[in-house]
Amino acid sequence: MGQVTALECVRCGRSYREDEVLYTCPSCGPSGILDVVYDYEALEANGFGPERLAANPDRTHWRYLDLLPIAPGAALPPVPVGGTPLFQLPDLAERLGVVEMWIKDEGRNPTGSFKDRASSVAAVKARQLGFQTVCCASTGNAASSLAGFSAQLGLTAFIFVPEFAPEEKIAQLLIFGATVFVVKGSYLDAYELCSEAATTLGWYNRSAAINPYAIEGKKTGGLELGEQMAGRMPDWVSVSVGDGCTIAGIWKGLKELRRFGVIDRLPRMLGTQAKGAAPLVQAWRSGEEQWASVEANTVADSISVGQPRNGLKALRAVRESGGVLVEVSDDQILAAEADLAAHGVFGEPAGVTGLAGIQQARWSGLVGPDERVVHVMTGSGLKDAASARRAADREPTVIEPSLGAVQAALEAAR
Amino acid sequence: MGQVTALECVRCGRSYREDEVLYTCPSCGPSGILDVVYDYEALEANGFGPERLAANPDRTHWRYLDLLPIAPGAALPPVPVGGTPLFQLPDLAERLGVVEMWIKDEGRNPTGSFKDRASSVAAVKARQLGFQTVCCASTGNAASSLAGFSAQLGLTAFIFVPEFAPEEKIAQLLIFGATVFVVKGSYLDAYELCSEAATTLGWYNRSAAINPYAIEGKKTGGLELGEQMAGRMPDWVSVSVGDGCTIAGIWKGLKELRRFGVIDRLPRMLGTQAKGAAPLVQAWRSGEEQWASVEANTVADSISVGQPRNGLKALRAVRESGGVLVEVSDDQILAAEADLAAHGVFGEPAGVTGLAGIQQARWSGLVGPDERVVHVMTGSGLKDAASARRAADREPTVIEPSLGAVQAALEAAR
Repeated sequence: MGQVTALECVRCGRSYREDEVLYTCPSCGPSGILDVVYDYEALEANGFGPERLAANPDRTHWRYLDLLPIAPGAALPPVPVGGTPLFQLPDLAERLGVVEMWIKDEGRNPTGSFKDRASSVAAVKARQLGFQTVCCASTGNAASSLAGFSAQLGLTAFIFVPEFAPEEKIAQLLIFGATVFVVKGSYLDAYELCSEAATTLGWYNRSAAINPYAIEGKKTGGLELGEQMAGRMPDWVSVSVGDGCTIAGIWKGLKELRRFGVIDRLPRMLGTQAKGAAPLVQAWRSGEEQWASVEANTVADSISVGQPRNGLKALRAVRESGGVLVEVSDDQILAAEADLAAHGVFGEPAGVTGLAGIQQARWSGLVGPDERVVHVMTGSGLKDAASARRAADREPTVIEPSLGAVQAALEAAR
Repeated sequence: MGQVTALECVRCGRSYREDEVLYTCPSCGPSGILDVVYDYEALEANGFGPERLAANPDRTHWRYLDLLPIAPGAALPPVPVGGTPLFQLPDLAERLGVVEMWIKDEGRNPTGSFKDRASSVAAVKARQLGFQTVCCASTGNAASSLAGFSAQLGLTAFIFVPEFAPEEKIAQLLIFGATVFVVKGSYLDAYELCSEAATTLGWYNRSAAINPYAIEGKKTGGLELGEQMAGRMPDWVSVSVGDGCTIAGIWKGLKELRRFGVIDRLPRMLGTQAKGAAPLVQAWRSGEEQWASVEANTVADSISVGQPRNGLKALRAVRESGGVLVEVSDDQILAAEADLAAHGVFGEPAGVTGLAGIQQARWSGLVGPDERVVHVMTGSGLKDAASARRAADREPTVIEPSLGAVQAALEAAR
């Protein structure tokens, strides 16, 4: 189990013990995101390393318990998380003009998104910290996954979603038994209200933006990808960026794998934001570690974040990796959704935003023709049927049950 | 690769070579469903058996290529199918009053349903048979999975769906690039029209009802379940029943595993139909191998089949196994959907119908308190958000972004 030695503020560098602080740095306030620090030497001394990993038959993300902030003996949720497939799509590689294109399909997680990695860890942590009630502000996926894991662990869940959350995600929340508040306003409004409610009412706040443990769950995406690609590490790992927590988590996982010698080199991180919610791209271009909040507006609801909280971790991950941040339009996102589906994988808009980013980076020469790329497809397309209908270039034809009607329709379509 | 020796009619027993017949028995007509017969001895002589399976690192359902009707060297679709998780839900076992309750979550397949096993095999077979165009009548899942695998293999897909197909499934079909005909009428109307179009226009018909190879794909669900439970085989394997193809396929897979000594005993099969589409339950009760068609009407769209074509295979599978067929109401189905979600797994109505059946069989004493049960949960709940909203016993609360509004809502909910 995880050997956490400290929680370290990414802004001021101060260190705290786990029992000293719940969310962010007391000195820096909400912008003082904490990073969980482990005693890697102690882990190594205890035998953690490539051999132990290779010998572990567990294919879920709990195989990385040694690198998670979970105390020994914690009750884990019974529904398997992680162990998602990573596979090549040669035709898509050809279309994008790269030598290899891999998809890591995170839509195969229990509630259909990458967020299951974070929520499962946060839910276990909530119980460990003595909370019986959890809450979360989310554009949808973090919330539905928190609701799913709360159901498994017997926690009560209160969820704050903005008005634009897709119907499928609301349905998930309700059937998992969460209490759902649809907040009249933006994601930022929902986020602020959730924080206030958590503080006032004594709930545990899983909002990835400030929760230091959620990102540790996301880290398992990087650990898993790295293990799956060990010995053939790609040149680029691509991921859509909203709050910044996902790209930072994956990067941290990859670095840990290199630290322990499971992989011998690191990829470059390619982060893609939607043009309608791209404050981190602005910061990236300016070279600053600061960004102005924007009024978020994009079809990719899961990354429709106007005020990213984990921006610092995200910017540093991209810079450390020698990577890049790009932005793409909603039209590009919907086109990427159709493109990926034409190769048999159905992702939600935020799940394919990074794919549009790869295409753009390829056009502009940031990604070269001989490079090998993995895209982390973060959510199932079934989570947002309405956007899929926008992305598809066709409509169903309603016909009478007769062969003549079929033939007439085929004729008309010529 | 599969050593197919014959296609054998389940009704008259006549045998055909693979190149003699495409769908059903020429003597018996549409009711003469064919069963694919393999040369198990030759497979064994070639070294197929428990050791070879155990040594196979492939976790997708293509690990069973030896038992599939696919010629050597066939191009396989790149998106992984199968390898779905099987896990225990102890709290659900307690609620249902059985000693162990396992879920095999087929919603983790690439297009979100068990049908991916059948469609992937049928799509490969279509290419092998020289077809460039495939078609399918389906209440939704078979169609969306066929569309997904057609996209991967470069096949053109024409899909016939009845009017009641959920929005999410239509969205999947369209984004995968299929041409979709919404047939004004029942599933039966869509089915008949698809058959007529296939014959007239020279398309390959994947409709599970008559396609002898689709069920071979479904067989891998049984092969996988059996391998996962080897040495601890459950007393019952539960599955929802519409056309009958799924329960028959799973049973065939289990029998093959026993034939090759991978498992040493077989479970009993518990098949559950929705009351609004339960002709096979009527046949089961009467002890006949015949059934009258009914006007199907149930919330469980994927098993809303009024005229089952694979009824004979299904009835025989249940009888051979010492199992039982039961029926449950739509209210029981929706209650089961909420029940399973309360334990963290979100299934579509047809995916949980068998769970309602387990509860009923437990109440009536058909399933005993000391028995161990596996339920094959055949489809993701994200495929039908509208039904989930019906199943959930709660609604979201729309609030202003203020703590006062949260507190007022909590107060009102007491």
